Amino acid sequence: MISWKNLDTLNAYEELEKAEHVDLVEAMCGENGAERVKKYSASMAGGLTYNYAAKQVDDEILKVLAKLADEAQLVEKFQALYSGEVINTGEKRRVLHHLTRGQLGEAVVVDGVDKRNFYTEQQRKYTELANRVHGGEVTNAAGEKFTTVVQIGIGGSDLGPRAMYLALENWAKKNNTLKMEARFISNVDPDDAAAVLDSIDVAHSIFVLVSKSGTTLETLTNESFVKDALTKAGLDPSKHMVAVTSETSPLAKSDNYLAAFFMDDYIGGRYSSTSAVGGVILSLAFGPKVFEDFLAGAAAEDALSKERNLLENPAMLDALIGVYERNVLGYPSTAVLPYSQALSRFPAHLQQLDMESNGKSVNRFGDSVDYPTGPVIFGEPGTNGQHSFYQLLHQGTNIVPLQFVGFKNNQMGVDVVIQDSTSQQKLCANVAAQIVAFACGKEDENPNKRFEGGRPSSIIIGEQLTPVSLGALLSHFENKVMFQGFVWNVNSFDQEGVQLGKVLAKRVLAHETDGALKMYSELLDI
Amino acid sequence: MISWKNLDTLNAYEELEKAEHVDLVEAMCGENGAERVKKYSASMAGGLTYNYAAKQVDDEILKVLAKLADEAQLVEKFQALYSGEVINTGEKRRVLHHLTRGQLGEAVVVDGVDKRNFYTEQQRKYTELANRVHGGEVTNAAGEKFTTVVQIGIGGSDLGPRAMYLALENWAKKNNTLKMEARFISNVDPDDAAAVLDSIDVAHSIFVLVSKSGTTLETLTNESFVKDALTKAGLDPSKHMVAVTSETSPLAKSDNYLAAFFMDDYIGGRYSSTSAVGGVILSLAFGPKVFEDFLAGAAAEDALSKERNLLENPAMLDALIGVYERNVLGYPSTAVLPYSQALSRFPAHLQQLDMESNGKSVNRFGDSVDYPTGPVIFGEPGTNGQHSFYQLLHQGTNIVPLQFVGFKNNQMGVDVVIQDSTSQQKLCANVAAQIVAFACGKEDENPNKRFEGGRPSSIIIGEQLTPVSLGALLSHFENKVMFQGFVWNVNSFDQEGVQLGKVLAKRVLAHETDGALKMYSELLDI
Repeated sequence: MISWKNLDTLNAYEELEKAEHVDLVEAMCGENGAERVKKYSASMAGGLTYNYAAKQVDDEILKVLAKLADEAQLVEKFQALYSGEVINTGEKRRVLHHLTRGQLGEAVVVDGVDKRNFYTEQQRKYTELANRVHGGEVTNAAGEKFTTVVQIGIGGSDLGPRAMYLALENWAKKNNTLKMEARFISNVDPDDAAAVLDSIDVAHSIFVLVSKSGTTLETLTNESFVKDALTKAGLDPSKHMVAVTSETSPLAKSDNYLAAFFMDDYIGGRYSSTSAVGGVILSLAFGPKVFEDFLAGAAAEDALSKERNLLENPAMLDALIGVYERNVLGYPSTAVLPYSQALSRFPAHLQQLDMESNGKSVNRFGDSVDYPTGPVIFGEPGTNGQHSFYQLLHQGTNIVPLQFVGFKNNQMGVDVVIQDSTSQQKLCANVAAQIVAFACGKEDENPNKRFEGGRPSSIIIGEQLTPVSLGALLSHFENKVMFQGFVWNVNSFDQEGVQLGKVLAKRVLAHETDGALKMYSELLDI
Repeated sequence: MISWKNLDTLNAYEELEKAEHVDLVEAMCGENGAERVKKYSASMAGGLTYNYAAKQVDDEILKVLAKLADEAQLVEKFQALYSGEVINTGEKRRVLHHLTRGQLGEAVVVDGVDKRNFYTEQQRKYTELANRVHGGEVTNAAGEKFTTVVQIGIGGSDLGPRAMYLALENWAKKNNTLKMEARFISNVDPDDAAAVLDSIDVAHSIFVLVSKSGTTLETLTNESFVKDALTKAGLDPSKHMVAVTSETSPLAKSDNYLAAFFMDDYIGGRYSSTSAVGGVILSLAFGPKVFEDFLAGAAAEDALSKERNLLENPAMLDALIGVYERNVLGYPSTAVLPYSQALSRFPAHLQQLDMESNGKSVNRFGDSVDYPTGPVIFGEPGTNGQHSFYQLLHQGTNIVPLQFVGFKNNQMGVDVVIQDSTSQQKLCANVAAQIVAFACGKEDENPNKRFEGGRPSSIIIGEQLTPVSLGALLSHFENKVMFQGFVWNVNSFDQEGVQLGKVLAKRVLAHETDGALKMYSELLDI
């Protein structure tokens, strides 16, 4: 029997608060540093490893975190989730994004429909579309092949698919599986759509319109923008557009689209990269096989999240260390720092995933919580960030926990040797150096050149960023955020905080405002 | 006589700590809200306005902030800076980036050289180059015009110029002044350079190599990478590359470049967008006139920063409100949220500008400070962010102050009307709505749909994002960060925090490691 309790009512949390803190400088920088790096490591799927040696934990704290995992029933709650219980209580919905990539438990049947079958059936349909487009069976009116695919969507319909596309674009080029170039239109700023349309050949482009409800203001506006452009170019918009939406949305059965692919209310936007939301564009861009591999990586990583032994469940471990940092050590933000240019927008995706899921002040029952929940998430790829905001991370007045990601091999297979090392080696040397610099610091006579150290980080290390390892990486963070939501006892699957702005914006457009809002509207000439 | 004192030794700071807090819900959401929006507004250059009605200030707090500005001698310190005093005491350097765009005070003569003349002479030289490239006088070996310009640089040699290029790319297209497309190579990850080279026609590309010292690892490595590619394409690298560096660097007098343009030690990387670091690529991309207008906007905004009256000095006002939020109200981060897709990388530039400048724990004299300094800075363009991390901003457990930017008109001049409003109107309606939603919140029976409000923001409003208004916007933030550094009594112009990582990375590459560092190196196969 699962019970949902606030973090500060758990015995293990009390114990955690009392546990002796780890002095990271002492732990990492002495003789035992190497041992620690060897020991504090957990295997992930896709050849990845989660190494947490440079976190402020030791065997004692890990033991308490394991108790906390048990007492908070994290694995049981995950099981309830993938078994189809209504975990998104606010919106009275199941949470089934894991089923888009695998069957983790018993079949989940809703209204007579096996949901895993439903998602794989959608995948089969857009796999078929992708094959027909690549094979020249589905073409433009002139019978010419489509060369570009453009996603129209915002939030979860944009950030995840965009980050995943960028993560694999060069890998696909190198492996001769880049079938079509992808572009993304998201912002209601008309310059966004105009600039994308200006950069592509619309006659050879296929557009993927993504809106679960079929009512997202930005997306419908941009659809119109694109249709205008197609019509002006003498093209029939309905021959250039597919929809990804829910079966009950106004887009579902429209003649305006070549085809429609379905998701449902059980797939939250920010968890939808492995559904049709990511699947249609990624299958078109890279071919269905690449997308299948990506799903296989995610599914394999999901399976690890069922593991009860905390030390063998990297997502749960990462989650609990994060809670310890946020609630006991009091760190208000976390930086995500992939040493891979291909992951340039991965931090932006995690920013949504994490902050929209756990940036909540009430628990699942609507009661205010008395402890901090989700932190601010930000990040840029390394080594770029080193020449930017790392100054504050090293010597600022607040400590910011860090999440590094690094790969032994690059994607394009081109490199140069300068001063006896390749660029890839320099990249990897930098991330190794940063972990130790943050943890150990350095004394100096000149206080301006002094590094306090004691700044915690973990690193996920892989062989190469591939479809499989990318899937595992994505799943890791999705499940980490889910576990943290369980610990904080919040509903990680709704987003009521985005509603008020929408309501007020409508009022502005209808000129039904007064007071400050009216004045701002005037200042902005609306 | 200027005296440099810690914030917590100032009388006005003590007064500020005791001042009654403003209840933002009460102030903004009653009848007086509109009055407040009208009143709490300061004119900027380039047709911009800084509106701070939704900040937690009132006449009383503004009076104390004005005292603080006086007591901390902010205007005098700015004067000392632009007059050439050695403000960057750590590195014993002057701080002269303002002279790249105007003469704010008396001439600054160093070793017999008038520095304003020095910078304008460089500008004259790269203006000439740009005109000759555009006019087809400087061409590739085959006598064909260059069509693309690629910057090779990292940190300040990348983020600022890249953000400025993106900010004006569509404006330039629309105004028929996009002379060349620009690309950027920054990361030591070899896939970064490989992908850029893959996307351009190298035979018609000119590369701008930017490194003040001429020794930046990433940049020299990427230079080699590019030279390899040029050579393999049968081209002479020295006919395709110019350098931006200091006069004393190894790159300055090399035959490997078509030309070299100089900056000096008095221009910090993150403050270098208005120097040759930004000037060469922006003049090549948009034509010299556009870059001149950008400088004029920055110069006009700089002039406002000399103003003693706090209410007429928007950068100083913004700075002091930020200090109040950081040190008295205790907010640890700030979000930058431009409602303009063209400003997509402006937050990343401000992230460097701010965090690298003021992420310090010691004051100018090397003594530890006992108060928080620079906050974490992050952000994405609106409305995209609304569908991503705004959930936490509205309903999270921590308050994050917000900096909005919005323009009445878009850049491309193309728009659609949907439901009686244009996309641009929707964009503006959203930013107006967000300010009020954050400030005022909303009661609801369902606690999950409740918005506490009291979340402070300011907005910079402009007619359109143009070269002039972009210059003003950039200057505003540069000077804001400078004033905050003065208040915190830190040196905003060095970055010793980036050194340790570099030293350790070299050690890794030389295989001179032990302990944890050796083990990480092994895990990463270096």
